[in-house]
Parts: sequence; structure tokens; C-alpha cells
Amino acid sequence: MAGAVCLTSGGQDSTTCLFWAKQRFDPLCALAFDYGQRHRIELEAAQVICDLAGVPLTVLPLMILRDLGGSALIGSHDTIQASGARDGLPNTFVPGRNLLFLTVAAAFAYQRDIHHLVIGACETDYSGYPDCREQTMLALAKALDLGMDYAVHIHTPLMHLSKAQTVFLAQDVGAMEALRYSHTCYEGRFPPCGMCPACQLRARGFTEAGRVDPLLQRASARRTEGG
Amino acid sequence: MAGAVCLTSGGQDSTTCLFWAKQRFDPLCALAFDYGQRHRIELEAAQVICDLAGVPLTVLPLMILRDLGGSALIGSHDTIQASGARDGLPNTFVPGRNLLFLTVAAAFAYQRDIHHLVIGACETDYSGYPDCREQTMLALAKALDLGMDYAVHIHTPLMHLSKAQTVFLAQDVGAMEALRYSHTCYEGRFPPCGMCPACQLRARGFTEAGRVDPLLQRASARRTEGG
Repeated sequence: MAGAVCLTSGGQDSTTCLFWAKQRFDPLCALAFDYGQRHRIELEAAQVICDLAGVPLTVLPLMILRDLGGSALIGSHDTIQASGARDGLPNTFVPGRNLLFLTVAAAFAYQRDIHHLVIGACETDYSGYPDCREQTMLALAKALDLGMDYAVHIHTPLMHLSKAQTVFLAQDVGAMEALRYSHTCYEGRFPPCGMCPACQLRARGFTEAGRVDPLLQRASARRTEGG
Repeated sequence: MAGAVCLTSGGQDSTTCLFWAKQRFDPLCALAFDYGQRHRIELEAAQVICDLAGVPLTVLPLMILRDLGGSALIGSHDTIQASGARDGLPNTFVPGRNLLFLTVAAAFAYQRDIHHLVIGACETDYSGYPDCREQTMLALAKALDLGMDYAVHIHTPLMHLSKAQTVFLAQDVGAMEALRYSHTCYEGRFPPCGMCPACQLRARGFTEAGRVDPLLQRASARRTEGG
């Protein structure tokens, strides 16, 4: 079996991809980025999920993302300006974020003689993020291939799935238990706030799939213990 | 005139590109990366040269490059292993380095409504570095374009020039004075060591062009003052 690097964020999609990849690749490495996320709970979730999957996790610092996202630069001769809401994209939008993640992941894979990358990008989710499109992934794979003189395959198992189909896939690949520990809430809360767009999108997927979200089961168990 | 971002390292090639770009783009921004270079003299040279050119310089920290290059990781759950001398490439080789530089530069340009990037990549220099090839640049421009939904043009004025032709171009675009302050020596020395491969490649270009290297003139003036 060939090896792969799976990009991991502690969220629902990357957790599903991790278990999908576990069935197909060996050795499998998980890679997460620390870019000063507002909520450390994301990286903590990634670690718990990788432990459950038995997949080693590497967390690479990638502060350039924070710098490009609009925060003050450290040690710079200039100040990065926050991007406006151009084209209706939110202020937190870092253009081409997945390009950056995958380029770093490809270099990381190269060092390990690995040719396969797995990412939870999804066109259904597209909503203004062009770096999630299949065409982007194909073009980037070609650029990486030429730029490193090294074959790079980018796998996107969720690319054409609805949120409900992603829930079914999670079941098929045995990711449901790990989804108890995944993190989605924009507010960084556990139990999740249930109100933010991320919580609502996740809830809609589970509802459409007719399944209970394992994360909410865990939250509810904790509430019961607590009460 | 359209605006551009010129990648700048303080070296001969990027200095020539900066002055080439100055004749063609407005506004022009210079962008350098601080990735824990062994020699701070490179970033100092970039600053002096940008001051001479009257072009604002932004230095972005990009420590991921150091991490990927084989040094110990900070705050990671893993240790990056130094890449071996695979395919005859030296140990300091970071695969796809220009891909990473250009992807960050593209995001930086996006924030400023700039569509043109300038880089001193050169196929003549190729010598094992696939991320300097024209085909790589074309593929990456397409990936950036799709991934940011934003037109990106990558200009490589030195792509097909010999080292001697690059010297002539530097003359044509008025970069010779600034080349006094450019840095090339792998040993990080001024006056340059003259012995390392970088010094020797630079010397060969000036010799073939029948010109005196302004950097050596400056070094020799300093020696005369000193003696």
C-alpha cells in the first residue's frame, strides 16, 4: 500500500477523510497547522481524533496565515491590511488557504517519500471558496508535480458529497466514534453553541442523513453527568 | 500602469528583477521572507536595495521553510527529518520553495488588488531546481488563478537569460549601482569569499559579460580605505 499525508483540522470533514484514508493508505500521517487559531480546541480535537485512529499527528506552525489574514505583522517593515469583504467573502478569508496548506503538505510528504495527499475539500461547501474546487486541486497537483519533480496526487473524497452523504461516508469508514471528539463550532465551544453557521451546517447534514451527531450525544451525556 | 509584487532576496537576480519591474509596474511592492536565513546580511541587503530603488519592502516571517528544511520543529508532535541528498539535491533543498514563496506572494498581492508577481527564477540556473522552470510557473499561475478566483500573472524576466545576459539586463534597467549592495556569498561574507559556488557563478557571469561586479568594486574600495 502507498503512504499518504492527510490534512487534519479536528473538524467533521477531515475526521471522515482520516478514517477514509486509513482504509486505503499505509503509512498514513496526519498533518495539522497551528496558525494561531482563535480556538485551541481545534488542535486538541485533532490530537484526540488521531490518537483514536492510531495515526501519528504532526502539527506545523504556519503563522504566515495569521499574518496574511490581517493581524499585525511581527518584525515586518510594513503592516498587512485586513482584506475587505471583497466579492462578499468574509474578513477572515485568507485567499488560497488550501493552496498554501497543500504546498506545505507536499513538501512534508516529499521528505517522507509519500506521493498521496488527502484533504476534505468539498465543492458542495464551495460558498465562495475557490480553493475547494476540483479544478483548483487538479491544477495545484500539476504545479506541485512540476515544481518538485515529484508525483503528487491530491485525494478529495468529499468533493462531490452533500453534507448528508458525508455522514453516511463517516459511518462506512468507521469514523462515527471519532466524530464524538471532532470540533466544528465557530465559537470554539463544547458543548457546541448550535447557533453559529458551522454548527447549523453540521446539524443539517446529520438531520438529512437521519442520524444523531455523536458530538451532540457526547455533549448531552456530559450535561446529564453535570446535572 | 498595473501594480506588482516583486520577490526580493537581496541577491543579484532579484535586484535586477526589482529594477526591471520598476520600469513596468506601479505601484511596485517588494516582498522578502524571513525564514531564519543563516545570514542576516541577505535581508539587510534587500532593505538597502529597496531603499535605493525607492520601493517599499515587506518582510514576512516564513519559518515553515526552516521547519521543512530539516531543523527541529517548535511545538510539534513530531520531528522533521532532514531530507537526504535524494536525486543529488543538497541537504538544504526545500522542495517547491518557489511554489511556497509565490503562493504567499499571491495572497499578499490579492490583499492589495495586485495581479502581477515578479520573480528571478531562471531555467539556465536550473541545476536540479524544478521550481525554477517556466512550466512550473505556468502551472502555478493557473492553480493560483483558480484557487483564489483572481487573475495572477507570474513574470520571470531572467527565465531564459545566461548569467552574462542578466548582467547586461541589470545595466539596461539601471540596477548596477544597487548591485553594489547585493549579497550572493553562501558564506554570508562581505567582502564575499570568492570561493563558494555562488560567488563563482556570479563572477563567471560578470567575466563573460566583460563587466566589473559593482559589489567587488565596493569591497575593493573598503579594502583600500581599511589598508
